[in-house]
Amino acid sequence: MKIILDAMSGDFAPTEIVKGGALAAKELGVEILLVGNEDEIRKVMTENALSDENIEIYDCKETISMEDDPTSILKEKKGSSMGVALTLLKDGKGDAAVSAGNTGALLAGGTLIVKRIPGVTRAALAPILPRKNGKTMIIDAGANTECRPEMLEQFGVMGSAYMKYAEHIENPKVGLANNGSEETKGTEVVIEAHNALKKRKDINFVGNVEGRGVMLGECDVFVCDGFTGNLVLKSCEGFGLLIMEMLKEVFLKGFFSKIAALLVLKKIKKLKKSLDYKEVGGAVLLGIKKPVIKAHGNSDAKTIKNAIKQARRFAEGGVIKSIEDALNNN
Amino acid sequence: MKIILDAMSGDFAPTEIVKGGALAAKELGVEILLVGNEDEIRKVMTENALSDENIEIYDCKETISMEDDPTSILKEKKGSSMGVALTLLKDGKGDAAVSAGNTGALLAGGTLIVKRIPGVTRAALAPILPRKNGKTMIIDAGANTECRPEMLEQFGVMGSAYMKYAEHIENPKVGLANNGSEETKGTEVVIEAHNALKKRKDINFVGNVEGRGVMLGECDVFVCDGFTGNLVLKSCEGFGLLIMEMLKEVFLKGFFSKIAALLVLKKIKKLKKSLDYKEVGGAVLLGIKKPVIKAHGNSDAKTIKNAIKQARRFAEGGVIKSIEDALNNN
Repeated sequence: MKIILDAMSGDFAPTEIVKGGALAAKELGVEILLVGNEDEIRKVMTENALSDENIEIYDCKETISMEDDPTSILKEKKGSSMGVALTLLKDGKGDAAVSAGNTGALLAGGTLIVKRIPGVTRAALAPILPRKNGKTMIIDAGANTECRPEMLEQFGVMGSAYMKYAEHIENPKVGLANNGSEETKGTEVVIEAHNALKKRKDINFVGNVEGRGVMLGECDVFVCDGFTGNLVLKSCEGFGLLIMEMLKEVFLKGFFSKIAALLVLKKIKKLKKSLDYKEVGGAVLLGIKKPVIKAHGNSDAKTIKNAIKQARRFAEGGVIKSIEDALNNN
Repeated sequence: MKIILDAMSGDFAPTEIVKGGALAAKELGVEILLVGNEDEIRKVMTENALSDENIEIYDCKETISMEDDPTSILKEKKGSSMGVALTLLKDGKGDAAVSAGNTGALLAGGTLIVKRIPGVTRAALAPILPRKNGKTMIIDAGANTECRPEMLEQFGVMGSAYMKYAEHIENPKVGLANNGSEETKGTEVVIEAHNALKKRKDINFVGNVEGRGVMLGECDVFVCDGFTGNLVLKSCEGFGLLIMEMLKEVFLKGFFSKIAALLVLKKIKKLKKSLDYKEVGGAVLLGIKKPVIKAHGNSDAKTIKNAIKQARRFAEGGVIKSIEDALNNN
């Protein structure tokens, strides 16, 4: 298994990305193909005394920034580390790609360099949120601001395939994001999508799921347009950050609080870990022909390692074959 | 100040509603006009030894249930406790109304019995969420599934008026819910709404606010369509419930955990209280001629008291006059 890693994208690139890649090569037994400025990458490796076992470097000088126009990846920035990583993936030089860079560019490159699976109308960006007793995939969370019913239907199929084959959830529950549980709730698009999802025999559609269901685990796949999904995802992230801040205040101020903190330290750490999106890795780019993971822009080495782990699960899984079959035989 | 209270609606009506009304009459110094079945109300008062000081009862036999068609409040259910409460409000028999009943019916009754403020296109249901250092109003959160740009613009104006006059926030920050901070982000409707809000000189528009901003307090008024608002609100509620469950697990199992719990009990209670929507009261129905508060369906006496407190702030405030002026002079 070889994972192609865009070494030059992300807030802490190349240092944290290269360190994350080396960590993955060491701990996960995968081969890593680092794409980026070889001199800079070697410098990071030397400075951090990283072993180059199972690590290859593909030298390229350009990078694509967060400010660059996403479509530039198809033109003047095709030679950027992200553009090259996706081209190498398309050409079969690795099994999956990971990048912490410009989301729009990764979507454009994924769709137009790696290309969509036949039958897929639109690729989706699907982050996975840790929640009560498991994980919930939110699909879409930003790739498609507005969606047609058949797009939402396909998101349900794609999300189900991922959660089944990559996350090994038996018969994943697919829910449609809505402002009420009744079938008649929601916009016209959502009502039509509900009817389409209900008819499918190849997924376990559990009907409408309200916002509460995301964190309380009423479904494994939460289907919505990218506008809604992005807002729901980030609302939860914001709440998570606030809670951690508040817990710090509870435990760090005062003598008794500090004793209490010592007494429950392990449990609080476990709670924090169980809600930390960095433990999951990144968002999945679904609907294209090869596995691509979008790691958080602010990823550190450990998050990159987790994203690589996720890319491995994705590549091992049979997710893409299952999507292809479902969308062409239904 | 007289608050009209629909005594027969809500999961724990009439008991908790009547108790909440009596609590408010006693603690807040307001007069309460209880609307509902007088025999049942008197029975609750006797059984709970509640004083009838500052409490009046308006007898009516019917109720509207959660299963009733919302528009029935205008026809066969006009004589229900909710219908009568709204009619009494319209007729000036009280300063504000509170109900924990069928949201759709309250919206229909609010709009068509109490009637909209001239110039208002649609009434909105606006819950107020406790968050970091304050409260955020989400407007709309369920009354209008799909919105036109001018509706979102008006929601900004109405929310700003409420947070200024009823919650006494100076120059409340109005943000537009979006999947990115750039002006070009979002659906066409949202982009148009952004331009309209930006032009208004009578509100403090802070631009697009992403999901994270809701709980982290980037704005006081979070403007969105009812579909998005409902999903964001309930995602946060779900997360809140999950956190409380997880904290219980941290503190209730094991000897050391119980000691820790004792040491930080006050602080944890404070944390819980600061995130508890029951402390806020209910959702505000904005855009109609009189103050109406929708209390949570599962309200207990204390929540009802808080909803009455909120209704008092709303009625004292000058909110409605401000909305009328803003929408007719701009």
